[in-house]
Amino acid sequence: MSNAAERWHETQLRVRYGETDQMGVVYHANYLVYMEEGRTRCMEALGAPYARIESAGVGLVVRKVSMRFRAPARYAQALTVRTRVTRLGAATVEFGYQILDSETAQFVCEGSTELACIDLLQEQRPPRMLPGELRQRLEAFELAAGTG
Amino acid sequence: MSNAAERWHETQLRVRYGETDQMGVVYHANYLVYMEEGRTRCMEALGAPYARIESAGVGLVVRKVSMRFRAPARYAQALTVRTRVTRLGAATVEFGYQILDSETAQFVCEGSTELACIDLLQEQRPPRMLPGELRQRLEAFELAAGTG
Amino acid sequence: MSNAAERWHETQLRVRYGETDQMGVVYHANYLVYMEEGRTRCMEALGAPYARIESAGVGLVVRKVSMRFRAPARYAQALTVRTRVTRLGAATVEFGYQILDSETAQFVCEGSTELACIDLLQEQRPPRMLPGELRQRLEAFELAAGTG
Amino acid sequence: MSNAAERWHETQLRVRYGETDQMGVVYHANYLVYMEEGRTRCMEALGAPYARIESAGVGLVVRKVSMRFRAPARYAQALTVRTRVTRLGAATVEFGYQILDSETAQFVCEGSTELACIDLLQEQRPPRMLPGELRQRLEAFELAAGTG
Repeated sequence: MSNAAERWHETQLRVRYGETDQMGVVYHANYLVYMEEGRTRCMEALGAPYARIESAGVGLVVRKVSMRFRAPARYAQALTVRTRVTRLGAATVEFGYQILDSETAQFVCEGSTELACIDLLQEQRPPRMLPGELRQRLEAFELAAGTG
Repeated sequence: MSNAAERWHETQLRVRYGETDQMGVVYHANYLVYMEEGRTRCMEALGAPYARIESAGVGLVVRKVSMRFRAPARYAQALTVRTRVTRLGAATVEFGYQILDSETAQFVCEGSTELACIDLLQEQRPPRMLPGELRQRLEAFELAAGTG
Repeated sequence: MSNAAERWHETQLRVRYGETDQMGVVYHANYLVYMEEGRTRCMEALGAPYARIESAGVGLVVRKVSMRFRAPARYAQALTVRTRVTRLGAATVEFGYQILDSETAQFVCEGSTELACIDLLQEQRPPRMLPGELRQRLEAFELAAGTG
Repeated sequence: MSNAAERWHETQLRVRYGETDQMGVVYHANYLVYMEEGRTRCMEALGAPYARIESAGVGLVVRKVSMRFRAPARYAQALTVRTRVTRLGAATVEFGYQILDSETAQFVCEGSTELACIDLLQEQRPPRMLPGELRQRLEAFELAAGTG
């Protein structure tokens, strides 16, 4: 599941028909869904599945997004989503992503999302520190990536 | 907002780019979104906006769907969604829909959704009766439709 | 990939975060996406991948949908989509689906979609017969299912 | 349709139920859909509807995205999408967006998308210059915005 040379977490997916648009390629907003899928599987692999975090009253909400597209993806294409932690703050974490064709390794797009940690148990959902255990797992992964 | 001759509630929308697929037409699952839009606006017009119902702890969840497609819709096309109440039970309500081209009145699709009323304040979300006021408003609309 | 006892094709998927709605469960229109995913993988397994059919100028378009929901699915839940051919006409094919929790086998929903075959090489996209090879593969699968 | 003080094009929309996620707010990828809606209506208002451009064999494809979120939007909330041209190249155009609550003017998010012009009539869809008339309309709008 992880790429030894570069310390990315990797997950595989296939483009669904409804994710294409009339241009015949994946509609651009859907790459954010693929990046979320990469993040979800990455956090699972780190032992910190997001569903468990949220059920403990802690939310991670997207605050910033950036994406750059290189080549279009098409229906039924097999894609590899690479995910890593690129910055870790007290109450925020930034993930970086690369999406590639699984067979040819052609670059499809890259991007990043910054997530802020919030307290779901309070009605106003104020910012809060990342839980200690989550922070440790993300930090270990970030360091591993840094030496890639 | 309502069609006098046939007692449908009517709402207008435009097809978004991301709602098309590589066939060049609206992806079929999105017609369920349009029907929900029709239902949302219809309930607003009846004085029973769904957001208010849900914030009072009452949910309406889709239990059955049926749709039949006649002609494809395309990007930027103006569509009219017609909505009416077709059956009203103690704890369920069925809405019927027609979707037409707003300019030519060409028939695009028709469908129905049966919704069950549930209690959002209990963790198991058991079925419950429709709230009295909601029921009255839906009943008045159903009767009006029946005489159309 | 197939269930010997009942002759369904089976595929696995996980619920994505963006597929949930504020009720905390999968938004109902997304089950049509899951059923399409089941159909896509089923046709691949039959040796008739839909991407290849379409690139040969033949389209299969959804004409009718029916769905019935039994239990809600949630974020990150593992689902099994069962697919089979339930009726095969000269120019149409109907698929039936069951969606279950992959661990508990709890029933989530069931449905069917009727697809019509069209000629993508003509501008009006008229109906056409199912291509012979596709028809044979679907027929063999339907018969296998029928003896399940 | 346009805001005199700041020379933005403005369009209105309402959050749909299926656009929310289990956090109870709009799923972040859907803001890209809202921004596309703003761009679509803006180009219509400029006399250059995108559907017509594409049917003339010219495509505008998203190459870069950036978004920053300030406050969550909720089901049925009325939003104003403000759109303007922020940079115009020979073969690219960048749009900027602000999304606000229509009643309180609370800031929801802001973002930008860079689009590249491509030739849809050639199979490889190579980059091409913006068509002259489109360019003039975008330029006039950009200049108007610049003096806002």
